[in-house]
Amino acid sequence: MIIVMEPAAKEEDIQRVVRKMESLGFRIILNRGDVMTVVAAVGDKRLIDPATIASMEEVREVKLIQEPFKLASRESQRTDTVIDLGLGVKIGGNSAPVIMAGPCSVEDDIEGLLKTAYAIRDAGAKVLRGGAFKPRTSPYDFQGLEELGLKYLAEAGKKAGLLVATEVMDSQDVDLVADYADIVQIGARNMQNFKLLKAVGKISKPVILKRGPAATVREFLLAAEHIMHNGNANVILCERGILGVDSHFTRNTLDLLAVPVIKKYSHLPVIIDPSHGTGRRYLISPASKAALVIGAHGLLVEVHHDPDNAYSDGAQSLTLDQFSSMMKEISELEKAISKTLEIKK
Amino acid sequence: MIIVMEPAAKEEDIQRVVRKMESLGFRIILNRGDVMTVVAAVGDKRLIDPATIASMEEVREVKLIQEPFKLASRESQRTDTVIDLGLGVKIGGNSAPVIMAGPCSVEDDIEGLLKTAYAIRDAGAKVLRGGAFKPRTSPYDFQGLEELGLKYLAEAGKKAGLLVATEVMDSQDVDLVADYADIVQIGARNMQNFKLLKAVGKISKPVILKRGPAATVREFLLAAEHIMHNGNANVILCERGILGVDSHFTRNTLDLLAVPVIKKYSHLPVIIDPSHGTGRRYLISPASKAALVIGAHGLLVEVHHDPDNAYSDGAQSLTLDQFSSMMKEISELEKAISKTLEIKK
Amino acid sequence: MIIVMEPAAKEEDIQRVVRKMESLGFRIILNRGDVMTVVAAVGDKRLIDPATIASMEEVREVKLIQEPFKLASRESQRTDTVIDLGLGVKIGGNSAPVIMAGPCSVEDDIEGLLKTAYAIRDAGAKVLRGGAFKPRTSPYDFQGLEELGLKYLAEAGKKAGLLVATEVMDSQDVDLVADYADIVQIGARNMQNFKLLKAVGKISKPVILKRGPAATVREFLLAAEHIMHNGNANVILCERGILGVDSHFTRNTLDLLAVPVIKKYSHLPVIIDPSHGTGRRYLISPASKAALVIGAHGLLVEVHHDPDNAYSDGAQSLTLDQFSSMMKEISELEKAISKTLEIKK
Amino acid sequence: MIIVMEPAAKEEDIQRVVRKMESLGFRIILNRGDVMTVVAAVGDKRLIDPATIASMEEVREVKLIQEPFKLASRESQRTDTVIDLGLGVKIGGNSAPVIMAGPCSVEDDIEGLLKTAYAIRDAGAKVLRGGAFKPRTSPYDFQGLEELGLKYLAEAGKKAGLLVATEVMDSQDVDLVADYADIVQIGARNMQNFKLLKAVGKISKPVILKRGPAATVREFLLAAEHIMHNGNANVILCERGILGVDSHFTRNTLDLLAVPVIKKYSHLPVIIDPSHGTGRRYLISPASKAALVIGAHGLLVEVHHDPDNAYSDGAQSLTLDQFSSMMKEISELEKAISKTLEIKK
Repeated sequence: MIIVMEPAAKEEDIQRVVRKMESLGFRIILNRGDVMTVVAAVGDKRLIDPATIASMEEVREVKLIQEPFKLASRESQRTDTVIDLGLGVKIGGNSAPVIMAGPCSVEDDIEGLLKTAYAIRDAGAKVLRGGAFKPRTSPYDFQGLEELGLKYLAEAGKKAGLLVATEVMDSQDVDLVADYADIVQIGARNMQNFKLLKAVGKISKPVILKRGPAATVREFLLAAEHIMHNGNANVILCERGILGVDSHFTRNTLDLLAVPVIKKYSHLPVIIDPSHGTGRRYLISPASKAALVIGAHGLLVEVHHDPDNAYSDGAQSLTLDQFSSMMKEISELEKAISKTLEIKK
Repeated sequence: MIIVMEPAAKEEDIQRVVRKMESLGFRIILNRGDVMTVVAAVGDKRLIDPATIASMEEVREVKLIQEPFKLASRESQRTDTVIDLGLGVKIGGNSAPVIMAGPCSVEDDIEGLLKTAYAIRDAGAKVLRGGAFKPRTSPYDFQGLEELGLKYLAEAGKKAGLLVATEVMDSQDVDLVADYADIVQIGARNMQNFKLLKAVGKISKPVILKRGPAATVREFLLAAEHIMHNGNANVILCERGILGVDSHFTRNTLDLLAVPVIKKYSHLPVIIDPSHGTGRRYLISPASKAALVIGAHGLLVEVHHDPDNAYSDGAQSLTLDQFSSMMKEISELEKAISKTLEIKK
Repeated sequence: MIIVMEPAAKEEDIQRVVRKMESLGFRIILNRGDVMTVVAAVGDKRLIDPATIASMEEVREVKLIQEPFKLASRESQRTDTVIDLGLGVKIGGNSAPVIMAGPCSVEDDIEGLLKTAYAIRDAGAKVLRGGAFKPRTSPYDFQGLEELGLKYLAEAGKKAGLLVATEVMDSQDVDLVADYADIVQIGARNMQNFKLLKAVGKISKPVILKRGPAATVREFLLAAEHIMHNGNANVILCERGILGVDSHFTRNTLDLLAVPVIKKYSHLPVIIDPSHGTGRRYLISPASKAALVIGAHGLLVEVHHDPDNAYSDGAQSLTLDQFSSMMKEISELEKAISKTLEIKK
Repeated sequence: MIIVMEPAAKEEDIQRVVRKMESLGFRIILNRGDVMTVVAAVGDKRLIDPATIASMEEVREVKLIQEPFKLASRESQRTDTVIDLGLGVKIGGNSAPVIMAGPCSVEDDIEGLLKTAYAIRDAGAKVLRGGAFKPRTSPYDFQGLEELGLKYLAEAGKKAGLLVATEVMDSQDVDLVADYADIVQIGARNMQNFKLLKAVGKISKPVILKRGPAATVREFLLAAEHIMHNGNANVILCERGILGVDSHFTRNTLDLLAVPVIKKYSHLPVIIDPSHGTGRRYLISPASKAALVIGAHGLLVEVHHDPDNAYSDGAQSLTLDQFSSMMKEISELEKAISKTLEIKK
């Protein structure tokens, strides 16, 4: 930890900081510059909340050197985490990309859901996704079928031979959702719902953690750390669009570069949601292909058998035909990606 | 609702949209331009999720005309909402600004808390704030005293004759928190935790709803709408800093202009948190004074009897003396503000 | 143009707006809702600055329907613009992606520049890039060799059989730069330097226009419109990173999705700068490959024969070997991209 | 300067960085942590571009300790800069706030301009502002009267006994503009037009430098440094709205807190433009009052004698009556501000 003192700091101000850090078990190296003094404190950053030091008199700023997440960090585990999702499907490391697809909301139409399930399975997807509990910006929008939706989803998955993934929105529903789903999902707006992170940390099912639209990569990995710290190491990170400068042509700015950045700093698998990330149907296929080329371990795509009549987010859903066509393109790309990996060696 | 068709849309595409909107009860006015056709749909926007229409073939974009929040809107209630907080303290409309102050976290030191409570009361504050459940970016930081913290807070409030406000983080804790607190607070990171919004909508205690750091004013008012729609109309909106272009010199960008904007579009009281909004002690007093001049109905300020040893966020807390001095300045300003209101008439 | 009136607007307020728009030659359709009236004005939006209408009494908001750029728009030209850069190299449409590479700054070392030029040519690049006039955030950083740099660049290009591209920073230097360069570049910080846009609009050399880090796609295309409106239709758009939520792990957020968005709304070629877009060497190759897969017409990559001793931006430059290796990977990808295009048909 | 090495860095990587920094004249202190080594380099940061070091092998990150601006910094000059604008008007330090007002564009109507000039003078303004060269996002909008506008402005200023301020957009026009204006303005979109900054650095007239909508405070002060480094120390900083999370209800997010932040890090005067900062007429008066309470040295306000018929930006202009009323409110506030300053002592 680097503690920058104000230019006006007196020797006693500096010594007060030194004493405090030493009392907490840090080793101190003083860097006296011409204008300011910098106190380097070597030790376990988790012993102290940096804000505590930042509040001391004549401290200008505290800079972290080591990232504050530990279990999620590449330093704590050099090899990639590979998670066994069930049915022989693995995600992470050099495993084949896992394609997860399905409707935004599970609707009161099990036939439609089954139609989607069979179609995505035939196109190569391994996981059926669909929302039973729906976070909605407006209280007047469809809020989801809740347990009925979970039942439909589990039934469709079973019939089609697919794993199922679905969102949990509240700590009270974690056990219920985990009973039906193979993979539990935390939505972007709940990325820092710490009680919920704690609750999914207590179960053993894999968790897809979506990045909040304003979250830095550091905050994102700290949210994963909350889950891991509570006992569940099976975290799959999902980038789904951040706040950019333009919300006119796309809903969010899909931060595709977050994939290689996260792979450098963490060992966890990372996937891309091209549907929420763009909010426009015509952008899903280009975004998906770019995501795999840039190194994503999987995709979470909205697909609907009849998007014009979807209960939610039809504008960012592919039709079954569009999904099938995209999967063929992806198949060609994957062969090329394998060849590029050999060039790198 | 304004539905903009693509330039390439054919007559049948336009008619499909028209039929859909008419079937939902909207009245249609077609605006045929030289390049594009615009379908104006007059009716209750809550009948439909705009994304459903946006997904139809050859629809370029859907623009809302009326804001999607209703109960929170100025149209639904012309006069300002004034909330009775208890002990004769009112917030909103032309009531005197309500100053809420206290430590970021309630700590295991009831004496320190009492010292703070008496000091802020003597300086003119009406509400003691303090966190018992603490949302923390890192799992290694202090997470709060939970129920013990609630007890300390209630005791200190009672002794000092102050109302108390504290945060609830999870739907399971709403009843517990409401038992101890006069005012319940929803943190910025939970602004779109819809299950929690629903839960505080079921109680009758006033709720301080903090704006998420990436939330637009529209999303903020829609979050308030969730609470109101569930039955609790006593919502106090709190701006506490948004994502800006610079996180080096300040933690967030305090959006002071949100105060007059919200007052134009909503009847709800709006307050400012200058501590989280800036993250720096030297900015709290300037931000507080500007907040009141720009029309805020109150302040939520972090004050600690010994900030250097605070468990959390000491860097953005005032000392008791600094708070007292700031309150004297505020008192002078309030007299001037009264005079400016007369000039306007 | 859609003019939304305030709920409190009276009939006379509405009629005032109607008369004004009619006097400007617009055809009016009134959309009277239950709460607000919307005035749809059909006509050439370029007849009026929307802000003029937005200022009228009881006007709440003005929304554009048609995009305000015209020459740059897909509506004005359905087919892709293909620009002949010289030496048989074409950019845009279905032409092979054009790779432009070279050092951030042209340095006082013609041998080093030649080494780079030969290497990038052998790897498949067609254009040598390098800065002679350097925009620098700090006045204490290297500002470029100016005309000497232009000479070196032209000489290296000629010897290696490459086209050359370089930045112009000031309207006074446009003719000088155009004398030496095959392609003239406008930097991101000058995207709205309108006098400079006008000046490059008067020449005939192709112009690479970089997107400002806070510019929306609409503003970006309006900047291109300034150049085209002044007579130069040979504009190549370049995305190079926008302001995102995180500036810790990457310098900017590379908005790769801007490529398919721009291709939908404009006929102009669009390329990606993965160096400024990421600011980190390890991200250049992943970003470049994703850029081509998502449809970019070219790349602008920083390459240096000795990045550790570069005058500027070494951290985001590839070595010659790294560039050569990346080009081999790109070659594999391009074959796969061709196959995916056939699937789409 | 703090150079953070990668965890994987070997001793030779560290020594390479040490040798490089020592060769540049820095004194080195090594901080060896358990995971990473930090190289603290003490010396004049202007000797080196940090990006040069960041590019070296196994360097993770370079953090600046001292701000990179020098002439503009509070360290280089403890006392506030006070600039004599002429006609006995001073800005900065404890001088009375300087109110600058006038139309966005100078229009072809000298009578209207004179009417505005007399009215703002009578209300207490000291500077008449107005644009003769207009930066416009669209090439189809009014571009300004150019020299004729300068003449009108100078004439109106002379008749009313006001100083005049106007924008210069291009290095070629600096001398022309400086001939007519008392204060030269650099627009937000030109904040990093370094050739223009250099050109206004060569004149002696005071310069208002507007902050770019995406510029950090550090970049803003570095832009001022460019002007000062070229010889002109009379720089007035102007905050006029930055990119926020919401562009629906306001054009920009006015960063009022930038005023006390800048006053801590720099000695230069800082003013607020509430018109561009908000883009809405009803927000100008609240923003102006808050700006003065938070410590701004002046205001730059758009006022028009007939905003409905303004050539540009009428929606963010006050009428003459509104301006006059606002000035009366400001007068009351200033008395209160004086009293608060005494409380602080």
